Amino acid sequence: MKIIFMLFTPLKKDILKKLVDTAINASNNAFHPITPKGVGAAVLTTEDEIFQGCNVQTTISGLGVCAEQCAIYHAVAQGKYDYKAIAVYFPSEKFIKPCGMCLQLISEFSQVINKDIIIVMINNKRKIKFTTVNKELKGAYGPLVAGKDITMYKKNK
Amino acid sequence: MKIIFMLFTPLKKDILKKLVDTAINASNNAFHPITPKGVGAAVLTTEDEIFQGCNVQTTISGLGVCAEQCAIYHAVAQGKYDYKAIAVYFPSEKFIKPCGMCLQLISEFSQVINKDIIIVMINNKRKIKFTTVNKELKGAYGPLVAGKDITMYKKNK
Amino acid sequence: MKIIFMLFTPLKKDILKKLVDTAINASNNAFHPITPKGVGAAVLTTEDEIFQGCNVQTTISGLGVCAEQCAIYHAVAQGKYDYKAIAVYFPSEKFIKPCGMCLQLISEFSQVINKDIIIVMINNKRKIKFTTVNKELKGAYGPLVAGKDITMYKKNK
Amino acid sequence: MKIIFMLFTPLKKDILKKLVDTAINASNNAFHPITPKGVGAAVLTTEDEIFQGCNVQTTISGLGVCAEQCAIYHAVAQGKYDYKAIAVYFPSEKFIKPCGMCLQLISEFSQVINKDIIIVMINNKRKIKFTTVNKELKGAYGPLVAGKDITMYKKNK
Repeated sequence: MKIIFMLFTPLKKDILKKLVDTAINASNNAFHPITPKGVGAAVLTTEDEIFQGCNVQTTISGLGVCAEQCAIYHAVAQGKYDYKAIAVYFPSEKFIKPCGMCLQLISEFSQVINKDIIIVMINNKRKIKFTTVNKELKGAYGPLVAGKDITMYKKNK
Repeated sequence: MKIIFMLFTPLKKDILKKLVDTAINASNNAFHPITPKGVGAAVLTTEDEIFQGCNVQTTISGLGVCAEQCAIYHAVAQGKYDYKAIAVYFPSEKFIKPCGMCLQLISEFSQVINKDIIIVMINNKRKIKFTTVNKELKGAYGPLVAGKDITMYKKNK
Repeated sequence: MKIIFMLFTPLKKDILKKLVDTAINASNNAFHPITPKGVGAAVLTTEDEIFQGCNVQTTISGLGVCAEQCAIYHAVAQGKYDYKAIAVYFPSEKFIKPCGMCLQLISEFSQVINKDIIIVMINNKRKIKFTTVNKELKGAYGPLVAGKDITMYKKNK
Repeated sequence: MKIIFMLFTPLKKDILKKLVDTAINASNNAFHPITPKGVGAAVLTTEDEIFQGCNVQTTISGLGVCAEQCAIYHAVAQGKYDYKAIAVYFPSEKFIKPCGMCLQLISEFSQVINKDIIIVMINNKRKIKFTTVNKELKGAYGPLVAGKDITMYKKNK
């Protein structure tokens, strides 16, 4: 693993390595009958738990999830709502950012704890690049703007 | 747990109990800032593994998942594609069937192994009622109709 | 146009012909960079207005719509919520039913006026087959079950 | 209508006024049984045609569209794929940007003609603010990155 573009990150090296490995391995579980590539992701909670995800495609345009969404749904299924970082492995040399739909979902959860969430992009050489959800989707709509009370989700289950 | 309407089911009593308990417990993890009710689900693989899910709501109409979808994405994240049954707990006295969107997703996976999938509905009295995806969504569109090769997913990872 | 399977239908012959023609023509507008086939649909309001739709695909699994959904969103954009029928043209010899996700959307609107909605399936020979949303998605969840007040939508705008 | 924050815009004053009026009026057509607010949008093609949209909500978390998506699906239903601008009216004093999911859809279509698309935000005082999809969702994934041939959509139908 070689970090080629480093912003500030509070992720510890061993945690980051585990997060990256999990995202890469998760891509093998992808269900992708429509396109040739499996994508993997892994979300890191504020308690350093990791939940993996992969893309899930169907024959219906509006039904299915990207790997990042899958990882978040996996974490929520386990009662975890506060995330420090999310890593996404896309098997191309070019670094691929989460799509707008994934950024929106990540942003909704960043509003639960009202803190930015680090995004770790991993390419097919295992190189990584950092960004954050607030950098990629500035001033996003979400529960805070909509006036929804989400304080009860601040504490994981 | 009291079964009030019994079709044929090949689920063993202890497995069924565990599936139902998992679905009910999973409802506590629901992320539902929009509506008052948490819904839980649990999918049972052909190898008797269970993966739970819950509804996840956002402030965006087209973004979020029902509990059944969440449970399936959770299972796929772990490399499991062949399901025998899915249970859904909805906290009302009336039994609630999976919505059409969930039925479509369940159906797509039933086409992986080309077998029907049992649906277990659980109400707020812990009573249960059975149906199947093929009964609820007859002749559904999906990978088989679309001519997609999904044979590689017949074997779990 | 040859009707090969006739249930009861209250659609007048000329209206039906126009609905079918509109659905077929709309398939030419489909935006489908992912799969080779364009699908068309057309929704008929209780006032005999017709709104067309087509499938819209994106590179993101959960983003995009089937033709039926597109037609409904088109009609709602014009302030029309009460539908008598929806036709869908799928360019294959086999008749293709609306997917579960489309059935759910059609069902939500059938609950606005609390009446069944006729579904007209059209194949690549311009043959047609009838069904209804209540037949295909029995006892569907929706605004009535969820206790949402939708009486204000009974009157088109 | 008072423009309070002006970036460069190539929109002519009369076209902009019509676009803004259409978006505001479209909000009256919104189908929103879940939340109290109707949102309106209008997309402007490169040939100065305008297609309106509004938010459409269902009782299912992943089913429904924001006003911007509705406007685009409306335009595609009519065979129009190349957009110069999209306006969105949100009935609050705060200016609301399109959500990440909408930005992704707008971005997919910006890749058809490989040009940026202007976003016009309108608040409840009829004030407007400009941005663009490339500013809000930089380097977005989409058909160009995915290597999909979309040249056929460059010409409207």
